[in-house]
Amino acid sequence: MTIQTAIQALSALLGERLSQSMTILEQHGASESYYPLTPPDAVVFPQNTAEVSEIIKICAAHDCPVIAFGTGTSLEGHQLAVQGGISLDLSRMNAVLAVNAEDMDAVVQPGVTREQLNQDLRATGLFFPVDPGANASLGGMAATRASGTTALRYGTMKENVMALEVVLADGRIIRTGSRARKSSAGYDLTKLMIGSEGTLGIITELTLRLQGQPEAISAATCAFPAVADAVNTVITTIQSGIPMARMELIDANMVRGFNIADGTALPEQPHLFVEFHGSESGVAEQAERFAGIVQDFGGSAFKWALKAEDRAALWKMRHNAFYAHKALAPTLRAMATDICVPISRLAEAIEFAEVKSRELGLTCTIIGHVGDGNFHCALSFDREDAVQFAKVQDFMHQLAETAIALNGTITGEHGVGIGKMKYMQAEHGGALDTMRLIKRALDPQNILNPGKLIPPSNTGPA
Amino acid sequence: MTIQTAIQALSALLGERLSQSMTILEQHGASESYYPLTPPDAVVFPQNTAEVSEIIKICAAHDCPVIAFGTGTSLEGHQLAVQGGISLDLSRMNAVLAVNAEDMDAVVQPGVTREQLNQDLRATGLFFPVDPGANASLGGMAATRASGTTALRYGTMKENVMALEVVLADGRIIRTGSRARKSSAGYDLTKLMIGSEGTLGIITELTLRLQGQPEAISAATCAFPAVADAVNTVITTIQSGIPMARMELIDANMVRGFNIADGTALPEQPHLFVEFHGSESGVAEQAERFAGIVQDFGGSAFKWALKAEDRAALWKMRHNAFYAHKALAPTLRAMATDICVPISRLAEAIEFAEVKSRELGLTCTIIGHVGDGNFHCALSFDREDAVQFAKVQDFMHQLAETAIALNGTITGEHGVGIGKMKYMQAEHGGALDTMRLIKRALDPQNILNPGKLIPPSNTGPA
Repeated sequence: MTIQTAIQALSALLGERLSQSMTILEQHGASESYYPLTPPDAVVFPQNTAEVSEIIKICAAHDCPVIAFGTGTSLEGHQLAVQGGISLDLSRMNAVLAVNAEDMDAVVQPGVTREQLNQDLRATGLFFPVDPGANASLGGMAATRASGTTALRYGTMKENVMALEVVLADGRIIRTGSRARKSSAGYDLTKLMIGSEGTLGIITELTLRLQGQPEAISAATCAFPAVADAVNTVITTIQSGIPMARMELIDANMVRGFNIADGTALPEQPHLFVEFHGSESGVAEQAERFAGIVQDFGGSAFKWALKAEDRAALWKMRHNAFYAHKALAPTLRAMATDICVPISRLAEAIEFAEVKSRELGLTCTIIGHVGDGNFHCALSFDREDAVQFAKVQDFMHQLAETAIALNGTITGEHGVGIGKMKYMQAEHGGALDTMRLIKRALDPQNILNPGKLIPPSNTGPA
Repeated sequence: MTIQTAIQALSALLGERLSQSMTILEQHGASESYYPLTPPDAVVFPQNTAEVSEIIKICAAHDCPVIAFGTGTSLEGHQLAVQGGISLDLSRMNAVLAVNAEDMDAVVQPGVTREQLNQDLRATGLFFPVDPGANASLGGMAATRASGTTALRYGTMKENVMALEVVLADGRIIRTGSRARKSSAGYDLTKLMIGSEGTLGIITELTLRLQGQPEAISAATCAFPAVADAVNTVITTIQSGIPMARMELIDANMVRGFNIADGTALPEQPHLFVEFHGSESGVAEQAERFAGIVQDFGGSAFKWALKAEDRAALWKMRHNAFYAHKALAPTLRAMATDICVPISRLAEAIEFAEVKSRELGLTCTIIGHVGDGNFHCALSFDREDAVQFAKVQDFMHQLAETAIALNGTITGEHGVGIGKMKYMQAEHGGALDTMRLIKRALDPQNILNPGKLIPPSNTGPA
């Protein structure tokens, strides 16, 4: 058993920082989604980059799969040990190594969570903007190219990671990028690692771009007669160039979930939740221009959340949408998916989701970072009800195909993991073979998160 | 002669669209820099992607180097046929294929120049923001990860190319990315191709992100007692979060060049040339805040360029800086270099350049996109004066080393080409081997722009 031999060697290296306790294994093999428990053979807890490098060398020597683990909040099964092996839990590498306020950047270890970093930054007047909802680790967010509610204004992880330290599949440690704001010096290995889901290397350090806290922030909600009116408001707003910080669509079902789960009393209609960042006068100007567009599409007056605590409550509610969805059908399980389309096709895509879920008789909620053309559907189902589960799968399948047909993508921010692998060929065509070539060049033994991102083929280990 | 065999086959395919005329060969083997004329064996002029694919297949069959050619404005010798072979001139693939105004994107062929695209977009209220100065081709700009004066506000090519069509080293055609604003679906091949300088594939189509024309634009110049005052103004401005559209440093020598070449009468002191984009009131607010900072550092009152034609003249003068530099020493040749450092180290880096060039007795001008930490030095020299030329080389060398020592990069926007290869190991360390692995995986025969970007090693064709 090569995995067992690897575990013996790792145990000698790490002592108590290797665990095979059932609780720990199950925690690392669980998923927030519907995937069955798929625990690793062992979990290791490295304390520094040198140790990660030693671990990878041992795994390479014994052909043992290595799965990087952050906080386990993936919705696409990234962390599941589908081929066994070890889970590399980076949560103890959680130091903020440097905050360079004058350069507006920070250097962190991969286990630092976004809330921890922003807590650390409070006194500096700076913040890290990427906000996927979950209090994910920054290493995990980079590995899945995460984004969330603020990507509209500040970009995704792709735009906000300047440089990485990475341990490669043979244990070598490399640095990609520098602290310069831009560079034309060679292949963009930073961007290649971002979104590679632990299949090309293990991220052991990140240099992140920070933003100045805006002088003024205001948030508001407004209701619309129909989803199409809200979507048309979004499209017009984007085209008018208003620099919205957040613009979230919440469909009527989801509002009902919020009212149940959060005790709110919002009108059960489609809503936009928005936020403006800027100078005092800039925010006022943005809000006024946006209000004009809202009015044109029959939206209600704004309900403002002006105080910091009211804003925090609003976005906390939004971030907990998956749990609010579950409140609609508490006895059922729930599954969430995400697609992203060009904004001109957004109304079509959302209408498809509404009509199709209604046709299939499924409890469906739609929320989304619609300013980017990205939205999520959550569906309730009984795992024991094969007919209903098949309907959910059918819906997911048709939604992914719709995304591709509309020139969009099968995932805007959740990643591929095991859940979306089956659509990679349809989305990428021949480019998938190029991804395979890169995987094979950087991980010829296929030990880094095998069975994820790249669907199996006859042409190589990936 | 394998190259000759390839040329015979290409000639049969292309007829008159293959040229071996000396004028054409020399035009494609010339450089705006100091490199000697290095012509290819033939130049081909494909008309569409299928033809590019056929050309590459022929070259692959005969191990013939292929060098993509846009407009030839590279300063680092990207287009030179250092190992012979064919120059693939993409200037006839110059159609704007689609403008999706509602999605604020455009699909173009690689030979479209940035001025051509912006001319085409005039009626739409949209523009493509990346502006490297030269009227370069968009394919070439993507291949070198170009940026320029507006990157501060709108990003570089990296942030403004959404998707590509690429012909690989074996002639296969792939598409990277989609028209969605973001995606987490697999490796970021778009970003891998951007900045790869024609060494991993030939870009045959680009999907570009567009921006809305700002409601208001104003530009201004102001003079400072010393370079350090101008640089400190830049640093404070960036940290204060003012969304500057352009912020260019011009040193006193360069101002003297402008006064000679452009007939201006600017005070021969260090200057900042700036531009503000936004709503009428937003621009006024930005300008007022910036003026406060300028005053704090002893800068002069603004000289405004409010009319569109005055702004155009200002930026034309800036873009022609290399020629204005030459006006300072009309009998000498000139060489330009570029580095980029974290903004907190910018004053040090510029001071180094000033002091070192003075010590060496060289005519040096410094200009830069300093809001990004990126600046250029141009130096005059007599190619026949070996001592002077060695001093120029020494300066270039020490400036590159300074960039690396300050946590920056050897090139912010000009690219590596042949000029910066010798510093790639120092900047990237072990990551250079990862670049080699990728090059070998995607171009195992090393036919795509061989002898560029990746320095020779004993470990493979790259």
